[in-house]
Amino acid sequence: MLKALLASTSTLFGEQYLEYLIPTLTNFYPQNPKILFVPFARPAGISYETYTAKFADAVEVIGASVTGLHQCNSHLDFSSFDGVFTGGGNTFLLVDTLYKKGFMEPLKNAVTAGLPYAGCSAGANLGGMSMATTNDMPIILPKDLRTLGLIQANLNPHYLDPIPGNKHNGETREQRIKEFFLTGDLMYKYPVIGLREGNWLEISDKNIWTRGLYQTRIFLNEEQIIEIPTDTEIQEYLK
Amino acid sequence: MLKALLASTSTLFGEQYLEYLIPTLTNFYPQNPKILFVPFARPAGISYETYTAKFADAVEVIGASVTGLHQCNSHLDFSSFDGVFTGGGNTFLLVDTLYKKGFMEPLKNAVTAGLPYAGCSAGANLGGMSMATTNDMPIILPKDLRTLGLIQANLNPHYLDPIPGNKHNGETREQRIKEFFLTGDLMYKYPVIGLREGNWLEISDKNIWTRGLYQTRIFLNEEQIIEIPTDTEIQEYLK
Repeated sequence: MLKALLASTSTLFGEQYLEYLIPTLTNFYPQNPKILFVPFARPAGISYETYTAKFADAVEVIGASVTGLHQCNSHLDFSSFDGVFTGGGNTFLLVDTLYKKGFMEPLKNAVTAGLPYAGCSAGANLGGMSMATTNDMPIILPKDLRTLGLIQANLNPHYLDPIPGNKHNGETREQRIKEFFLTGDLMYKYPVIGLREGNWLEISDKNIWTRGLYQTRIFLNEEQIIEIPTDTEIQEYLK
Repeated sequence: MLKALLASTSTLFGEQYLEYLIPTLTNFYPQNPKILFVPFARPAGISYETYTAKFADAVEVIGASVTGLHQCNSHLDFSSFDGVFTGGGNTFLLVDTLYKKGFMEPLKNAVTAGLPYAGCSAGANLGGMSMATTNDMPIILPKDLRTLGLIQANLNPHYLDPIPGNKHNGETREQRIKEFFLTGDLMYKYPVIGLREGNWLEISDKNIWTRGLYQTRIFLNEEQIIEIPTDTEIQEYLK
């Protein structure tokens, strides 16, 4: 049974890394979990080792022991872990590295077979059908933009509402997402879930719940945009 | 002799499309120029025809006649035109379309041989070595991120300074560009020129001048970042 958490961000303003998610992660993984950490998105260019240590430090409070995926090869035995966590950073780098190291397919198979998957920011993008609605810079070109496909949607983490009276002429997030529907590659065309900071999706088998402090914005297509309250099951909108 | 204008934006707040650039374009192209317009970035998903008509309307004041590149095939005779203009929109879509239609190489050859090239936003990205520092969404996957290479740098149009006191945890533009240097593909690693709204670069043979109202921010690498006044020749920094 599929079990996943896809979160907008790792860190709320003024808080420690993952602090706001710790209560949720405590219930998400079993007790004293063995967690496989995916460090490939490398925020601010930090090394795999440093990033894995940072995560291990944050989840020590839930009794977790952590292994970095960079220490494994693509034949690793996923069943020796109780869950996966993918850290944020650059989504292009994350997806490129997963494809190059041969992890994308086995990771997808393990998670769809029931290995609990959690991810923040780039790690949330990874849970969708593709990374076509990431906000990140294309600092490297992956061979494919398709991702784990845990839900029939693409994610837009760190979703920002248009700022009234803004005098900057770069496109707003909403304009970009509309362009995605109008002119993007057909193979990526699924609804886009805009996750505001502090929000996440909780996926349990076929149910998808909105969680967090704010409403969740779902772009069904270039015209139909809906606002969903927190703690709402949204699977019906993604058909 | 190479001749190019690479501009951050097409439209200043409260102004008409291209209004602020018209005096510059008047001197850039010859009198009553025949301009080849590249409409492939399709902002807000508008059609090639509508976009070309919008551009033609804006440059009527300089006596220009306009042909849309979508009306041509890759064997077109560039020497029958006095200049090229590439409109803004989505850089992934622009670059993908140029590659798919076979225009990238002949366009590059024509411009490096002296056909005046001007571009805004996505069209400015196209002038750099690659589109690896675009702000746009990857709504389609081009076969290559390398672009015209008119200058030994990448562009970041609509450059935004970090907002003091911002409580949003998406990366700032500066953080993204630092990550580009630290973890991006080596083949794209050239200095990044952050063009604030209303600024542009004027390229004449080997000289590159900053133009516009504001300073221009140049990221030489992940540590060295310089601010350059307007009307300054910057070629020495790009070696």
